[in-house]
Amino acid sequence: MIDQLVRKEVVELKSYPESGPACTIKMDANENEWGLPEDIRAAIARGMKDFPFQRYPDSDSTKLRKLLCDYTRVPGKNLMVGNGSDELINYVVNIFIGPGDKTVIPQPTFSMYGFFVSLAGGVVAELDTHAGFNIDIHQITETASREKAKIVFLCNPNNPTGTVLSPGQIKEVIEESPGIVVVDEAYYEFYGRTVIDWIQRYDNLIVLRTLSKAMAIGGLRVGYLAAGDRIMEYLSRVKVPYNVGSFSQNAACIVLENRESIDKWLDTFIKAREDFINSLSCIEVITVFPTQGNFVLLRMKEAHRVWSKLLERGILTRKFGRGVLEDCLRVTVCPPGQNRVFIRELKECIREVYS
Amino acid sequence: MIDQLVRKEVVELKSYPESGPACTIKMDANENEWGLPEDIRAAIARGMKDFPFQRYPDSDSTKLRKLLCDYTRVPGKNLMVGNGSDELINYVVNIFIGPGDKTVIPQPTFSMYGFFVSLAGGVVAELDTHAGFNIDIHQITETASREKAKIVFLCNPNNPTGTVLSPGQIKEVIEESPGIVVVDEAYYEFYGRTVIDWIQRYDNLIVLRTLSKAMAIGGLRVGYLAAGDRIMEYLSRVKVPYNVGSFSQNAACIVLENRESIDKWLDTFIKAREDFINSLSCIEVITVFPTQGNFVLLRMKEAHRVWSKLLERGILTRKFGRGVLEDCLRVTVCPPGQNRVFIRELKECIREVYS
Repeated sequence: MIDQLVRKEVVELKSYPESGPACTIKMDANENEWGLPEDIRAAIARGMKDFPFQRYPDSDSTKLRKLLCDYTRVPGKNLMVGNGSDELINYVVNIFIGPGDKTVIPQPTFSMYGFFVSLAGGVVAELDTHAGFNIDIHQITETASREKAKIVFLCNPNNPTGTVLSPGQIKEVIEESPGIVVVDEAYYEFYGRTVIDWIQRYDNLIVLRTLSKAMAIGGLRVGYLAAGDRIMEYLSRVKVPYNVGSFSQNAACIVLENRESIDKWLDTFIKAREDFINSLSCIEVITVFPTQGNFVLLRMKEAHRVWSKLLERGILTRKFGRGVLEDCLRVTVCPPGQNRVFIRELKECIREVYS
Repeated sequence: MIDQLVRKEVVELKSYPESGPACTIKMDANENEWGLPEDIRAAIARGMKDFPFQRYPDSDSTKLRKLLCDYTRVPGKNLMVGNGSDELINYVVNIFIGPGDKTVIPQPTFSMYGFFVSLAGGVVAELDTHAGFNIDIHQITETASREKAKIVFLCNPNNPTGTVLSPGQIKEVIEESPGIVVVDEAYYEFYGRTVIDWIQRYDNLIVLRTLSKAMAIGGLRVGYLAAGDRIMEYLSRVKVPYNVGSFSQNAACIVLENRESIDKWLDTFIKAREDFINSLSCIEVITVFPTQGNFVLLRMKEAHRVWSKLLERGILTRKFGRGVLEDCLRVTVCPPGQNRVFIRELKECIREVYS
């Protein structure tokens, strides 16, 4: 009986892949493997003594939005905090997408955009995938116009390819699209270029960010969104009260108050990424995609067999299902010691698989 | 331009009311004003030292579901944890309700059921409200059948009235309804009767619970849901990964591992509620509704003016907008000292307003 009650969109939906198996070096989820700086951890622990766990959180994340305003230079009224950016993507889709509405999502990219669009009964317009996963701006704007796409999603830097769009390219999409343009800057800190200040200029722009990557609190689920007044008005209607827990808000505030520790760490990170890419590039049988994220996409023959071999040695990377990424692995940039172990083991695995 | 892109359902939606103003005695949100027992607080703080904040949470809340299974006697595979029960209500609505689909929601009740139904384009069938806010089971089942309602929502004990349905009455609704029956047992611990074990018997039953009330971690947003295998299968499709933060999962586990502290506290609570109700019942000009929750609904003339007078004295209660509750205030049961202050101040306020 239950099945007959279910919405058609849900019947057709696939679950998000399960979490990965146990491992000793975790390179599958683009987490910050350095962890939180010690001074920030200590400040969070100090705040625990009289923490009012029983009290509902501030629905408006007022203090956190104030600190995000300091960080982003976007006025607090143009910021919303979510239970990870996933919640915010869901809100955006919920505002604009009903059954049959069109979206443009250049592939391959973060899977949650398409997930929420499908759940809402929306349609993702087909785009060609280009060699090297380069994004064809002209094709995006042309498709968006032709299909009257209500939303175009751009992930910049793009997960899982690591490629970036320049501000000029993003400008073109914003100006030529008939609907909303969402720019997901989850990996912004590893890249350094942003369009977040454009939300004042373009009323169809939404920028997403997260504290799960550079800011190293992925476990606490804190994402944020910036947009112009009109979009914020609609967001406030679909937003659920108490969406971000009080402990998460508090920890996020402490991270932002101490963000010079993160800034300092970013120099360390950039150096580690450079060294890692250089070492990977010396392995002749793999293709290393240029990256501005905290991960790198590698193309190689027998990627799934290499993935299994790596896992046998305790290293978890991200593999992909059938499609343009099936011969690729995505690997999180880790501290130098772990990166060196990875390089050594990868060479061994490749030797075993290819022999 | 933005407005033309927005879904009709969102244009018509109203925001959830803002959080209340500052106060010294907080009786507006049915929080647990005793707070977490000291031993549980200490155990949570101890776990902080090496906490992996950077790591994404376990998407399946595996350990927490195991402890919830111990607590509820429902198999782990029939439990799902959410970012508060709000997230779970949203999932349930998302599975079953599309534009025009009918629901039955006896009023007055928790506003989020209707919120999510409206957002999905669903329709809430009208029911008569009865004197004393008693629920007419026959009217519910008749309306559900006539309207082919896809979901009936029952909040038991009901927020904000405090009234309860007996297991026999709930059974009747489950057996006579053509669709899903959601029984929200957020206030279960204050009442003591549950139908959660019936999910094995009725494939159209969903039971909601929360750790925000008796369990005293409302700030951490942990709700859970129990249902039969078929509904769980659909829930797993619409569920977002990483929906409950790792710190929240961890704290919830500690609360459940130490739940004898909560059980002990419940005796204290029941005594406090009894005393509070007795004292309130001595105030002749107000009507005190019988309650099995951690709150009590009071009906009085000029409720909004009394609300303001109480707030001037630092006491925040819950008032309601136009409708059947506009002459009511909902008041959280607090520790005895605060309840006594409330009684004293309420009498004063009533005297001032009515004179």
